[in-house]
Amino acid sequence: MVNPQLDELRLYTKELVTDSVEILKEYLSFPTISAQGTAIPETVEYVVKMVHDAGGEAQVLDNLGGNPVVYASFEAGEKGDDTKTLLFYNHYDVQPPDPLDEWNSEPFSPVIKDGVLFARGVADNKGDLVARLTAIKVLQKAGGGLPCNIKFLIEGEEEIGSPSLAPYLREYKELFKADACIWEFGGKDAEERINMVAGIKGMAYLELSCKGADIDMHSSVGAYVDNAAWRLVQALATMKNQENEILVEGFYEGIIPPTEEEKQAVQALPFDEEAVSKLYGLKRPLITAVKGQDPREAMVFHPTMTICGLVSGYTGDGTKTVLPKNAKAKIDCRLVPGQDPDHILECIKKHLQKHGFHDIEATLVNGQKAYRSNYKHPFVKHVIDTANEVYPAGTVLAPNSAGTGPMFEFGAQLQLPIVSTGVGWIQSKAHAPNESIRLEDFEQGIVHMAYMLSGFASALKETHESIEA
Amino acid sequence: MVNPQLDELRLYTKELVTDSVEILKEYLSFPTISAQGTAIPETVEYVVKMVHDAGGEAQVLDNLGGNPVVYASFEAGEKGDDTKTLLFYNHYDVQPPDPLDEWNSEPFSPVIKDGVLFARGVADNKGDLVARLTAIKVLQKAGGGLPCNIKFLIEGEEEIGSPSLAPYLREYKELFKADACIWEFGGKDAEERINMVAGIKGMAYLELSCKGADIDMHSSVGAYVDNAAWRLVQALATMKNQENEILVEGFYEGIIPPTEEEKQAVQALPFDEEAVSKLYGLKRPLITAVKGQDPREAMVFHPTMTICGLVSGYTGDGTKTVLPKNAKAKIDCRLVPGQDPDHILECIKKHLQKHGFHDIEATLVNGQKAYRSNYKHPFVKHVIDTANEVYPAGTVLAPNSAGTGPMFEFGAQLQLPIVSTGVGWIQSKAHAPNESIRLEDFEQGIVHMAYMLSGFASALKETHESIEA
Repeated sequence: MVNPQLDELRLYTKELVTDSVEILKEYLSFPTISAQGTAIPETVEYVVKMVHDAGGEAQVLDNLGGNPVVYASFEAGEKGDDTKTLLFYNHYDVQPPDPLDEWNSEPFSPVIKDGVLFARGVADNKGDLVARLTAIKVLQKAGGGLPCNIKFLIEGEEEIGSPSLAPYLREYKELFKADACIWEFGGKDAEERINMVAGIKGMAYLELSCKGADIDMHSSVGAYVDNAAWRLVQALATMKNQENEILVEGFYEGIIPPTEEEKQAVQALPFDEEAVSKLYGLKRPLITAVKGQDPREAMVFHPTMTICGLVSGYTGDGTKTVLPKNAKAKIDCRLVPGQDPDHILECIKKHLQKHGFHDIEATLVNGQKAYRSNYKHPFVKHVIDTANEVYPAGTVLAPNSAGTGPMFEFGAQLQLPIVSTGVGWIQSKAHAPNESIRLEDFEQGIVHMAYMLSGFASALKETHESIEA
Repeated sequence: MVNPQLDELRLYTKELVTDSVEILKEYLSFPTISAQGTAIPETVEYVVKMVHDAGGEAQVLDNLGGNPVVYASFEAGEKGDDTKTLLFYNHYDVQPPDPLDEWNSEPFSPVIKDGVLFARGVADNKGDLVARLTAIKVLQKAGGGLPCNIKFLIEGEEEIGSPSLAPYLREYKELFKADACIWEFGGKDAEERINMVAGIKGMAYLELSCKGADIDMHSSVGAYVDNAAWRLVQALATMKNQENEILVEGFYEGIIPPTEEEKQAVQALPFDEEAVSKLYGLKRPLITAVKGQDPREAMVFHPTMTICGLVSGYTGDGTKTVLPKNAKAKIDCRLVPGQDPDHILECIKKHLQKHGFHDIEATLVNGQKAYRSNYKHPFVKHVIDTANEVYPAGTVLAPNSAGTGPMFEFGAQLQLPIVSTGVGWIQSKAHAPNESIRLEDFEQGIVHMAYMLSGFASALKETHESIEA
């Protein structure tokens, strides 16, 4: 179907995209690792510059502690509708790049190979911010100014669980007021369909720590000295069995069961077990906590308990005959609506006590509740409809993602529908070595955002239906 | 009791000890970490220099691979007995110094504080070599030449399990032929008694490795992707229970039960549970694999299974939401006479298979059998008797130590009685940060070795009783 407006946006995007890739590459060269607190001020400065270059106003909010939150705003043009506002949520921080020896290039020296751009943070989430700012430039180039008001909230602590976001959202509630929100990320699946979500899982990221002694000891004392590593191993083994069932009493309490509609939506999601297995090079078949459960249902509706890290004693090459003074585990529980991170912590603490592990301390490093928008909202429909026109292979929408973000706070404070979409692909490897996006997806993402924005105000006017939390 | 000979040796030791401490400090400044292969040639060169400076001949054996073995020899003087030979076993390599942040000084920059010399390797085992070479200088100063032939075997792979020692011992059996052997280490207990051993535990140092995938993954896939860290934790938990009993079938097979004599010897060993607990800052009471077992019996007669290291996924600061591609454990089993490291490996492999852990690989990094000398041999008696004269608080002798060394190979190849004694103290912290010896113990150790050597030949002539393996 011929669509002159879309063709025009495509043309302007093509004119701008080469420069945008250069801007993105420079943005990616900042090692903005929030877990290590590196390169924060430089990155914030560069984000502000990018906002200015796209014709917007920027404000750096830093009075409430944590890494600064950048607020950006672009006003509707003369022909636009200044009664409607779209909010973009992005983050400028990235995951640590290790294991470094598995990167084929330097994580903070972006390289393009066969149309694929490699760098830490390119898929999660620096590529999306640059695509969105470029979409604004495209709309300005099309003439008549912007079709609606546009705002951005760009934070710097997403990869460490957004600990400062809630206070900023509460304090600057009026500033961030909007009618709908496009969330940080998204991308294409193995069949090139764009995958979007209207919600997100929560998280309880815990540290379990066992201290056995003040000093590391010669391992020969293992004949009579208890071992912190064995204690932690034994404790962990009581929390999840070999079939991956979580055995912590109360862990599954309060979970809001999915509606029939949500279940059907999940059944429509694509999932290719073989492709997933090949992608990661898995050595064992997929496994869900509930035996025989559909992996798609597990992904959307079932909470997890994942060991993200384990460390004790000597971990270098060769041998060291040491009895370690302590042992630590990092545990990531992905939560579903109805679960509360603080309650999860309490359950785990009680479990450890009940099983005699009084010497193991559990702390909640990062807690976030899950969130699901009403994915039948007209805004959601508008995002899907425009995506279907831009992306030849079509779209897929899940009630919530398997991943996490601070969406619950947005929903609670701003009361607006949220959809997440972005410029990733099946090989994006977020959080892993050789993170990447394809330049063609980057370009399509710009077109989609420009096109979605151009019809945003009129799509919203069709109804005033409010979202459900 | 007045002993003019001993007084003379004490006097000469006092004259030489200041220089010897300087030599030791220089020797300690080489970071001879065999696990990392650092500073090997420089250290060997320095060892050879020390042997020459003490009037001996040195030969660097390196034709059989591995780090070189230094053979040193000193001939009996005119008044000495050249039919009797004492062999010293030492090693010039040291343990890795980490965790570095727990050292109060640089591990390879020796410092003396309140009469205590701190450096990696000072107690295990560089201090002993320098003390022994100084004892030779003391005897030469006393006139009349050396009282017997003296040999040294100084290897460079003890801290990684002496993988090349057996071939060198076999090849150079004639070179190392001797009538008795003084082993590498020893030291004083909390009550200032010198603790010696006439045997040693063996070792099976294993690596357990689980590979779950080719790449680290975003932890959200934990809903359906199996986790190498959980697999390893579950596997380990089947190998040892919360009461520290080893559950691997066949592990305890073939153990030679201690004799009544050996049991009595162990009952005579000092052991202060409270002092041990305070020394290490233990957070839990002592625990033995056999409920209620005397810790001394566990230490000497019972095998162990110690986790020395655990590592998987993200171990840095803060959070990283990763599902690790693999997980590894380093396991140190201390063995007793009758156990075979290869058999232990087979038992663990079978155990893993039996429990469904086909994805966990077990490899033996270092295997050594245990060894016990006949601790009633006249040489042993001579070492004790001379020690009782030198050390005011007296001596303690155990049938075997809780620690390990390649003593089995010495016994098998050279057929000689072995006693281990040295210049350590209760706070020596071998294998741990802030390793140390006291200068007064170093000085006493020199005196003891000189005095022991001076009466060695005549003590041996009293009998020709051979050792039992």
